[in-house]
Amino acid sequence: MTNAPVASGDRSEGHFDHDFVRQFDRLLRWRRDVRRFTDTPLDEDLLGELIAAAELSPSVGNSQPWRWVDVRSPAPRRAVEESFIRCNAEALAGYGGQRAQHYSTLKLAGLGEAPVHLAVFCDLDSGQGHGLGRRTMPETLTYSVVTAITSFWLAARARDVGVGWISIIDPAEVCTALSVPDTWELVAYLCVGYPEREDVVPELEQSDWQARTDPADRYIVR
Amino acid sequence: MTNAPVASGDRSEGHFDHDFVRQFDRLLRWRRDVRRFTDTPLDEDLLGELIAAAELSPSVGNSQPWRWVDVRSPAPRRAVEESFIRCNAEALAGYGGQRAQHYSTLKLAGLGEAPVHLAVFCDLDSGQGHGLGRRTMPETLTYSVVTAITSFWLAARARDVGVGWISIIDPAEVCTALSVPDTWELVAYLCVGYPEREDVVPELEQSDWQARTDPADRYIVR
Repeated sequence: MTNAPVASGDRSEGHFDHDFVRQFDRLLRWRRDVRRFTDTPLDEDLLGELIAAAELSPSVGNSQPWRWVDVRSPAPRRAVEESFIRCNAEALAGYGGQRAQHYSTLKLAGLGEAPVHLAVFCDLDSGQGHGLGRRTMPETLTYSVVTAITSFWLAARARDVGVGWISIIDPAEVCTALSVPDTWELVAYLCVGYPEREDVVPELEQSDWQARTDPADRYIVR
Repeated sequence: MTNAPVASGDRSEGHFDHDFVRQFDRLLRWRRDVRRFTDTPLDEDLLGELIAAAELSPSVGNSQPWRWVDVRSPAPRRAVEESFIRCNAEALAGYGGQRAQHYSTLKLAGLGEAPVHLAVFCDLDSGQGHGLGRRTMPETLTYSVVTAITSFWLAARARDVGVGWISIIDPAEVCTALSVPDTWELVAYLCVGYPEREDVVPELEQSDWQARTDPADRYIVR
């Protein structure tokens, strides 16, 4: 057999050249978790474009369980920032000595500066997909939301837009602040905007919190 | 302020042109969950390239908790396939009437044909990252593995390589079959190879199991 697949529609539409592959790998290298944003606003159509890109992501049983909450009002934004401040203080209290000192110097959110706050949820109660693929691994439903967040992140970076994923928050407080349905589980709270700087090295590596380690140690053959 | 960021190194290295953005969106549109593979083998260096691309993914605290198990031996492959067959039969038994009839016609795995089986785990016990970002949302550790799987999937598709994510298996059986450490949690079992056909429409949509629905219903403003 050959590996030339049969395509529906135009064959070349589903094919990518070597230059694209090279550039895609460059996109992966330059994607960062951004915590420092300029005050330049993000165009509403551009945000729509990023969500449309993310909507093309894979989901278990084609369930499309992601839910996007564009947080614009000052009150819920403030509630989320207060949750971050408290959770971050508690996290700091969990470290001792040098590590605590180091933690206190890290900038771990850009909630005050980011023009767009996007809370991303998983609807645990959606019947879409008719339960396919979720019986033995129900966690694939929330995993589907993570694939969409990843696509969003890369689509944003390709357009010079930075994304920061904030996890130092209390999910219950965020759900309350945003008055979402009981069946929605918070997967990520994203800060979105134009980064102050671009860098190929992750900030946690630059600041010596945690370097990238050898991939060879993470691969085994069975 | 302007939105021109300060870059470390060559400014143009972190910038992408309009043509790339358009092609990246096309990549998202043509990515599929593949269950039908040709018998063309996958070059070992190419698999290494895909894992290297995935290794560039974001992870909470730079924890890099993903673990790749390249499943080559017949015995664990057979054990996984048997797990799929049993779990799939149990899933079928959970449907009734027309839905059961429909489910029985779906091809939900390509375990027999795919040249590469890649089991992807999360190491729950890795100290890497020093716990940063995981105190209130510990699930971000497994989510980090999902970001890596998504990058792997897109990097593969850009190179004409198809990926199918199998979740109709018993994770405990897969862990046993692969003799992985107790602290490793199965996140995904991937079939990887050259797809028999390319299509812009998901197979579950083509077969009328579950259509894509209106993204406008998944977006709200607060």
